Amino acid sequence: MRRIVADRFRRLFNRSFLLHRHHHNHNHPPFPASSSLTSHYPFSPYRFFFSTPFSSMASDSPFPVTAQNINPKVLKCEYAVRGEVVTLAQNLQKDLLANPGSHPFDEILYCNIGNPQSLGQSPITFFREVLALTDHPAILDKSETQGLFSADAIERAWQIVEQIPGRATGAYSHSQGVKGLRDTIAAGIEERDGFPANPDDIFMTDGASPAVHNMMQLLIRSENDGILCPIPQYPLYSASIALHGGFLVPYYLDEASGWGLEIPELKKQLDVAKSKGINVRALVVINPGNPTGQVLSEENQRHIVDFCKQEGLVLLADEVYQENVYVPEKKFHSFKKVSRSMGYGENDVTLVSFQSVSKGYHGECGKRGGYMEVTGFSAEVREQIYKMASVNLCSNISGQILASLVMSPPKVGDESYESFMAEKGNILASLARRAKTLEDAFNKLEGVTCNKAEGAMYLFPQIRLSQKAIKAAEEAKTAPDNFYCKRLLNATGVVVVPGSGFGQVPGTWHFRCTILPQEEKIPAIVSRLTEFHEKFMDEFRD
Amino acid sequence: MRRIVADRFRRLFNRSFLLHRHHHNHNHPPFPASSSLTSHYPFSPYRFFFSTPFSSMASDSPFPVTAQNINPKVLKCEYAVRGEVVTLAQNLQKDLLANPGSHPFDEILYCNIGNPQSLGQSPITFFREVLALTDHPAILDKSETQGLFSADAIERAWQIVEQIPGRATGAYSHSQGVKGLRDTIAAGIEERDGFPANPDDIFMTDGASPAVHNMMQLLIRSENDGILCPIPQYPLYSASIALHGGFLVPYYLDEASGWGLEIPELKKQLDVAKSKGINVRALVVINPGNPTGQVLSEENQRHIVDFCKQEGLVLLADEVYQENVYVPEKKFHSFKKVSRSMGYGENDVTLVSFQSVSKGYHGECGKRGGYMEVTGFSAEVREQIYKMASVNLCSNISGQILASLVMSPPKVGDESYESFMAEKGNILASLARRAKTLEDAFNKLEGVTCNKAEGAMYLFPQIRLSQKAIKAAEEAKTAPDNFYCKRLLNATGVVVVPGSGFGQVPGTWHFRCTILPQEEKIPAIVSRLTEFHEKFMDEFRD
Repeated sequence: MRRIVADRFRRLFNRSFLLHRHHHNHNHPPFPASSSLTSHYPFSPYRFFFSTPFSSMASDSPFPVTAQNINPKVLKCEYAVRGEVVTLAQNLQKDLLANPGSHPFDEILYCNIGNPQSLGQSPITFFREVLALTDHPAILDKSETQGLFSADAIERAWQIVEQIPGRATGAYSHSQGVKGLRDTIAAGIEERDGFPANPDDIFMTDGASPAVHNMMQLLIRSENDGILCPIPQYPLYSASIALHGGFLVPYYLDEASGWGLEIPELKKQLDVAKSKGINVRALVVINPGNPTGQVLSEENQRHIVDFCKQEGLVLLADEVYQENVYVPEKKFHSFKKVSRSMGYGENDVTLVSFQSVSKGYHGECGKRGGYMEVTGFSAEVREQIYKMASVNLCSNISGQILASLVMSPPKVGDESYESFMAEKGNILASLARRAKTLEDAFNKLEGVTCNKAEGAMYLFPQIRLSQKAIKAAEEAKTAPDNFYCKRLLNATGVVVVPGSGFGQVPGTWHFRCTILPQEEKIPAIVSRLTEFHEKFMDEFRD
Repeated sequence: MRRIVADRFRRLFNRSFLLHRHHHNHNHPPFPASSSLTSHYPFSPYRFFFSTPFSSMASDSPFPVTAQNINPKVLKCEYAVRGEVVTLAQNLQKDLLANPGSHPFDEILYCNIGNPQSLGQSPITFFREVLALTDHPAILDKSETQGLFSADAIERAWQIVEQIPGRATGAYSHSQGVKGLRDTIAAGIEERDGFPANPDDIFMTDGASPAVHNMMQLLIRSENDGILCPIPQYPLYSASIALHGGFLVPYYLDEASGWGLEIPELKKQLDVAKSKGINVRALVVINPGNPTGQVLSEENQRHIVDFCKQEGLVLLADEVYQENVYVPEKKFHSFKKVSRSMGYGENDVTLVSFQSVSKGYHGECGKRGGYMEVTGFSAEVREQIYKMASVNLCSNISGQILASLVMSPPKVGDESYESFMAEKGNILASLARRAKTLEDAFNKLEGVTCNKAEGAMYLFPQIRLSQKAIKAAEEAKTAPDNFYCKRLLNATGVVVVPGSGFGQVPGTWHFRCTILPQEEKIPAIVSRLTEFHEKFMDEFRD
């Protein structure tokens, strides 16, 4: 039985590999010739082979639904950010609670996910005031309210409540989101870009993830439809492409030039995919980069826009880290602004920009707010996008309100302005310091190099592992970076995500670590990491 | 070009029809013999043929994405609750705003969707107090807060904030939802059912819709996988099955016996589907019914559980209207309780129960809270369900909190208890009165019969239309019920959804009307409806 299941999965994977079998003569080969299956694929399929307890799969299952008869696309989907290492961490956390002192650390530090408030970051006061008031508008005109809430938060809450038809903050909204809130967001985009934005182009969503799924669902018809994705990438993309049965066409970011996005690499991978019969539908660009932290230059972005225009690709622009830029020499430019500044109009470039309230300086992950701005689609296709949004009725109204606040924060002269700017400034300055401290610490480790985080919330250091370590991982039936990350967790309580979950040049190993632990904890983390790493290197020295 | 597109869609539909082509000799034939394509299918495909402006589809489209090259499953998906009639209503509303007095009514009454607060229902005070306090926990220990909020709301908010790791109400939670909130929900289920519930069986979701999509995604591998759905059904099910590429296996509710769910009909349709090579994976039961309003008897539910057990089907129990029962002779029983009371344990019946904060007496649609309770799945499959939840990180925390409140409202002795019970009681009593008034009004109309709404939020009257009306609809290239509903909207501003959007016995025509307009508006609605209907019947008298 076990062999049948393994064969089944092998076939499933081979199908993906087949198309790239004969493609060996490139600089960054997505799937280079190798005697071992394990180094073929940027996502380490064998991690998958061993992570599910297939031994318990029996044909005499008492259940009508089994791992053998569910949708194979679900089996194929991987999401390392909450994968095996995180499950191990959750078990350790339970164990720590039940048996204090049973491990060489007293808390688990979740550096696996961009979740700032889980690590102690406080929410922005103004945003929370407005949320509370719009949740319970009955107190808006009570006198005690003035003692508890700032005047501009009360005013903003009134405005928002008035914008919602029937003042019904508990009603389903228009499928794209409350019109008045979309007006505010469009105005915020206009102010950011200096080019007009249309509220009818905004589709509000529960975070950016459902928006990405919607686009994949729209574009992918079969496994012959391809989506160009950066490698390394945020695994939402690989997961969503797998769930919708499409083909991930990888393009490699150049680690040596600070995770540069090179047009010749895009063109090369597009041509390879086309030659194998893949219809490439879209290009995913994550700017600032996740997990790689680079911020694209405007010139680079212009070339990307032209590439999409020439090749007839939808540009899926993940711009959720637009507020997270930490280096003075770089600035965020939206792809919409770049394309408009090149003279392209609404119908010239098909562009979807994803934004989320989960990131930025506010990090309101749990509120699940976000939107996509959809431009350059025909009326018929927009109608289909609208229909898909309608099937889920609408995104949550608190998330919608928060998205409008993020795109329209307090202005000069507002009562909250100064305290808001102080909160925002402190968080961003602290994130920049944390990024630098961790980057420096990683670069001091033997065999580790780490590009700087110009933006976003992550570092993605490369670890050069010895043959002995790689062999030990093989014996443990896991990927070398997974082996390292599990060891790190068991020794320090620090949770990071193996590079194989994001994809990496085959034969290289990385991990992603957020820059989010509170500053006072960073020295201890650095010393624990350093101590662990030295021991690991010594243990596995060739 | 136009012909090619039409042919393409015809092929798409024919594929669905094919399987039922030779099945003509049953009492409630899902697709009876007919000379016309239009009466074949319970969802009136030709509504679809004509609703999209395909004339503008040209192969020289300047856009890389066109209606011809998107995912055909998206094209196939229909969601009438926000379909053509609602779009027309939105346009009328804009027109009313721009040109007051331009129509024979001064407001649009949205009876198309179960959205109580959009029609003036006030939220439950206790729920909103807790939501506001957990959104802005910084005010929890301020003295002014005690003047604005009830003591038990403050206490509950403290409890909830303490249950969230790090008190981080803005952080992503566990992929299934905050553990402490799931504990509360499980305790609420136990209290409701008298049988244990496991917090690890709870997956919290942004409303019930994403939960339904998750299950369809898990179960459907290809168009040969079928899901037994009631006809009429809530179109989330048909939409989700279409989006995931499965096959809707219809079973007809018996209108004559108050929308009875008959086991022989289930068995018959299952056998027909099997004989055509369909693997039927699951049975959808909506109780209380949507759009049909019936409440199942416990005995009937026991037979349904046994049917699923015998046939190896997953029972997908839509129980979102569990609080909405209006007749003393009926009571809601969860399928979990029924199956446990029959002696079936955790591993004997594979059951998913969907719950939502959007319905009930509170109707908090915009908060997008809900959960599914998942029982009778193997550990491997649960792991896959967990992975799917993880890809979207978590549902929104306010929705999670609200779901916990709904399953654990104020108790005797709490400060809010009496006012809470009064708010709840008033809403439910008023809904019961509104249901009865509208039901009586419909039954007085010529050619109209309407079963009572024992529960849920809808009436689904049958309208017997004349041959002349049917011919007029045909000339207008629309379904007869769509024709009627559009006429009704244009004459009265009342928005209802044609029965063809829910499915109905071919050749019968219905519409769904919510019972939600505020009581003071009902007499005017009834007289406008009556006047319209009389004129319509006169105009189209054979």
